[in-house]
Amino acid sequence: MPDQNDLTLSHLNETGEAQMVDVSYKNVTRRQAVAKGEIKMKLETFEAIETGNTPKGDVVGTAKIAGIMAAKQTANLIPLCHPLPLQKIDVKIIGDKTLPGYQIEATVITKAETGVEMEALTAVSIAALTLYDMAKALEKSMKIENIRLMSKTGGKSGNYTLLNP
Amino acid sequence: MPDQNDLTLSHLNETGEAQMVDVSYKNVTRRQAVAKGEIKMKLETFEAIETGNTPKGDVVGTAKIAGIMAAKQTANLIPLCHPLPLQKIDVKIIGDKTLPGYQIEATVITKAETGVEMEALTAVSIAALTLYDMAKALEKSMKIENIRLMSKTGGKSGNYTLLNP
Amino acid sequence: MPDQNDLTLSHLNETGEAQMVDVSYKNVTRRQAVAKGEIKMKLETFEAIETGNTPKGDVVGTAKIAGIMAAKQTANLIPLCHPLPLQKIDVKIIGDKTLPGYQIEATVITKAETGVEMEALTAVSIAALTLYDMAKALEKSMKIENIRLMSKTGGKSGNYTLLNP
Amino acid sequence: MPDQNDLTLSHLNETGEAQMVDVSYKNVTRRQAVAKGEIKMKLETFEAIETGNTPKGDVVGTAKIAGIMAAKQTANLIPLCHPLPLQKIDVKIIGDKTLPGYQIEATVITKAETGVEMEALTAVSIAALTLYDMAKALEKSMKIENIRLMSKTGGKSGNYTLLNP
Amino acid sequence: MPDQNDLTLSHLNETGEAQMVDVSYKNVTRRQAVAKGEIKMKLETFEAIETGNTPKGDVVGTAKIAGIMAAKQTANLIPLCHPLPLQKIDVKIIGDKTLPGYQIEATVITKAETGVEMEALTAVSIAALTLYDMAKALEKSMKIENIRLMSKTGGKSGNYTLLNP
Amino acid sequence: MPDQNDLTLSHLNETGEAQMVDVSYKNVTRRQAVAKGEIKMKLETFEAIETGNTPKGDVVGTAKIAGIMAAKQTANLIPLCHPLPLQKIDVKIIGDKTLPGYQIEATVITKAETGVEMEALTAVSIAALTLYDMAKALEKSMKIENIRLMSKTGGKSGNYTLLNP
Repeated sequence: MPDQNDLTLSHLNETGEAQMVDVSYKNVTRRQAVAKGEIKMKLETFEAIETGNTPKGDVVGTAKIAGIMAAKQTANLIPLCHPLPLQKIDVKIIGDKTLPGYQIEATVITKAETGVEMEALTAVSIAALTLYDMAKALEKSMKIENIRLMSKTGGKSGNYTLLNP
Repeated sequence: MPDQNDLTLSHLNETGEAQMVDVSYKNVTRRQAVAKGEIKMKLETFEAIETGNTPKGDVVGTAKIAGIMAAKQTANLIPLCHPLPLQKIDVKIIGDKTLPGYQIEATVITKAETGVEMEALTAVSIAALTLYDMAKALEKSMKIENIRLMSKTGGKSGNYTLLNP
Repeated sequence: MPDQNDLTLSHLNETGEAQMVDVSYKNVTRRQAVAKGEIKMKLETFEAIETGNTPKGDVVGTAKIAGIMAAKQTANLIPLCHPLPLQKIDVKIIGDKTLPGYQIEATVITKAETGVEMEALTAVSIAALTLYDMAKALEKSMKIENIRLMSKTGGKSGNYTLLNP
Repeated sequence: MPDQNDLTLSHLNETGEAQMVDVSYKNVTRRQAVAKGEIKMKLETFEAIETGNTPKGDVVGTAKIAGIMAAKQTANLIPLCHPLPLQKIDVKIIGDKTLPGYQIEATVITKAETGVEMEALTAVSIAALTLYDMAKALEKSMKIENIRLMSKTGGKSGNYTLLNP
Repeated sequence: MPDQNDLTLSHLNETGEAQMVDVSYKNVTRRQAVAKGEIKMKLETFEAIETGNTPKGDVVGTAKIAGIMAAKQTANLIPLCHPLPLQKIDVKIIGDKTLPGYQIEATVITKAETGVEMEALTAVSIAALTLYDMAKALEKSMKIENIRLMSKTGGKSGNYTLLNP
Repeated sequence: MPDQNDLTLSHLNETGEAQMVDVSYKNVTRRQAVAKGEIKMKLETFEAIETGNTPKGDVVGTAKIAGIMAAKQTANLIPLCHPLPLQKIDVKIIGDKTLPGYQIEATVITKAETGVEMEALTAVSIAALTLYDMAKALEKSMKIENIRLMSKTGGKSGNYTLLNP
C-alpha cells in the first residue's frame, strides 16, 4: 500500500491553495503507467459497431488515435500536471461481447522526474469518449465505466499495482 | 427511444471510412446537454479532501475550472466533433459520503447546427481526472465511474432523457 | 479568372503591415472548398504500405484522422486566418500505383463570412505529413507535391475552379 | 541507403494497428533535420508580393513566424510523433523569380531519443500555407511543391542526405 | 459609468462558485473592443531595437503576429471566456521614444452574443510579452505597464469608453 | 548588470530576420525565474471581490489556475520561445487594499538549456487578465501594471535581480 503513508495532499500547499509540486530535485528515471477503462452499450449497438467496423476498422481505429493524441495533451488539460516528454503511448481497444462494449487499455512511458499516471488515464478517457461520439447516433445510453490505474513503475515512491483490477 | 431508429453509424460513410457529418443544412437552434459521472475513493481519501478542502476549496475548485476549460477543447480532442461556439458551460462537483467520492455534473449550451453532448461528457471526464490527479498522492485506487449523458434538448432529432440515471 | 481583378494583397494594410481582414460586414453564407495534393514514394514503399495496410487500414486511416483534426487547427496555425465554425470536413486518401503514392483530397464546408480554402489545404498538408511520418522508416525520400486549391464555392467573390487540376 | 534495410513500418505493431514507437531505450543525442519545399505562383503574383513586401517584409516575415510556431505543434498535429524539447528552429524563405515563387527551408535541432524530421517538414508546410493565405486574394492557383527531407544527422540509424535534392 | 450598476460578479453564481455566464439568450450583434498597453525600457534598448529593427522589422512584426494569434487563443487561456468567432483582429505597435518603449493597441471585432474585451486585452498582453522576449538579451528590467480597455461598442449593456486613457 | 554586455539582439540573426536561438550546445541546469505584476481597481471593486470571494475563493483561485496553465502554453504563445519541460509553477495572488487591487507573483523552475523568464511573465499576465475577466462586470477601468522580472537564477549568464522592484 505504497500510497497510504502520504498524509498530505501534495498538490495543496500549507495554506490550502492549489500548487504544482516541485519535481526539480527528483531524479529522471524511466517510468511507466498502465490504465484501463470500459464503455458499456446495448448488444445491438456493439454488434453494429463490430459489423460496420469490419471492412475499415474506423470506429476503433479513430478512438485509438484520439487516445494517443490526448495523452500528449494531458498537461494542457489537467491544471497541475507537469509537461513531460513522452517516449511511448500505446492504446489498445478490444471488443467484449460480455459487457457488451469495449475494454480500453493505455500504456505510457516517460523518462522524467515524475510519472505518467495522468497521461495513461487521459488516453483511456478520451478514447472512450471517442467511441461514444462515433456510436451515439445508435445509442445515447452508453456508459463509460471503471477508469482506473492498473500499475505504475519507476520513481522513488516505488511500484504500484491495483489489487482488485 | 429517439436514438434507435437510426440504423447507420452517422460517422461512417458508405465505404466504412470515418467522416465528419455534414451539418451545414441543419438549422441553428439552442441546444443543451447534461452529463454526469462520479469518482469513487476510500472514505479516508474523501475525508482528507473534504478537510483539506474546507478553507480554500481548491481541489474541487480546480477540478471545476478544468472541466469548464476542457469543454472548450472538445473538438480538438474528439476527432469527428464539430467546432462550435459555446454559450454556457457549467460544472458542478458535489461530495457524496455514501460513494464515498464526488458526483460531477456538466451542462453545456450552444446555438448551433449540432448538439453538445460530447462537450458535456468531456467536461465531466476531465473534471474527474483532475480530482484523481489532485488526490492521487493519497490513493491511487480511485475509480472514475458511470460517465453518462443525462439529457439533451434542442435539434430536429428531439429531446433525450436517460431512462435509468 | 475571378482572382485577378483584386489588385492588392488583402492581408497587407496601407502601410504594408500584416493585418487580419475585417469580415464582419460580409454576409454569412454556406461556403465550400476542395483541395488536393499527393505524396510520391518508391514502388516498394507503396506496396509495403498497401500490404501492411490491408488488415487494419491504419496508415491511411491515421492520416485521414490527422487531416480532419488539422483542419480544425487552421486558425491556430495560419496567423491571419479567421477562426470559423466548420460544418463538415472530409478527407479522402487513395492509393495510386502510377505515382506511386497517394492522392489526398479534402473538402471543408462552413457557414461563415469568409471561406475555408486554408482549412482544406491544411487538411491535405497534414494528412500528407502523417503519411510521410508513418512510412519514413521505409523511405525518407518521399516527396509531398502539388498541394493546390481545386475549387471554392459560396461568398460574394464568386466560385473558383482550378483550370489545370 | 540507410532507410531501406528496415523491412517493417515501425509505426505498425504486429497486428497491423497504429502505435507510437517506444524510444525510451534509445540514447539522447543531438539531432538535426533539414527540410525544403516551394510554392509556385504567377510572375505577377510574385512581383506583387516582392513589391508590397519591401517596406515591412510582412508576407515573408509572417510565414517565417508561422513555420517556427508550427514546428512546436508537430506532436499535436502528427498523431504518432513524440513530443520533444526543441533547441532550435530556423525557417528561411527566399524569393526565386525563376519558379516564380518562394523556396522554404527549415532546420530543427533537438537533444532527444528520436529525430526531428517531422518538425522540419511541418515548419516548411505551414510556412508555405501561410504564404498561400497571404497571397490568395491575388491568385488562387498557387501550388505547394516538392516538400522533402534534405538531411538528418544524429541518432543510431546514422545520417541521411537526399540524393537528388 | 455603465458598469457600476451591476452589483454582482457575473462570473460567480449564488453560492460563490465560478461559472461561465449563459449568453445563449442574448442577441448576436457586432461588437468591438479596443485595448492598449505599453512596454517601457532603457533608451539604449529602445534604440537598439529601432536600429536593428530597421531592415526587416522583425521585432515589432513578430510581436504583432503573436498578438493576433493570441487573441484567437483567449478562450483557451481565460477559464470563463466564451469561445467566439472573430471577424477582425488588429494589433498596432508604435515606438515611443518618450517612454522609451512601445505603445501597443489591439482592436477585435466579433458578431456574437458577448463582447471581445478579453480578446483585445490578451492580444496586447502577448504582444508586449513577445517584445520583452525579443529584447531580453539586452535588458531584463523592461516593464509592461498600463494594460487597459479603451472602449467597447455593441451589445445591450451599451458602449464604454475609458475616461482617463 | 549582467544583461548589458550583450550587444546584439540574440533573436535577430545577421540579416535582421527573426530566429530562435540555438541552445543545443548549452548545458542543462536547474533554472528559476520569478516575475511579478499587479492589477489596480476601484476600492469598491476590490471589496466586492474580497467579500464575494470569501466563501469559495473562486476569483483568486480561478486566476491562479489560469496562470499555472498559461505558463505551460508559453512556447505556443511567444513565437521564439523554446518548448521546455517545467518542474514547478507557482502563482501567488495577494489582495492589497492600498493599491487597491491584487499583487501577482509567479515562480517557474526548469532543468533545461535555457531559462523560464517568459514562462513566469506569462503566468503573471494571464492571471491578471483572468482577474480582469472575472471582475469586469463590476468595473471595466481596471489596469494591469508593472509586469516585470524579479529574478532569475541558473545558467551560464549568471543570476539577475531587479534593482528597483
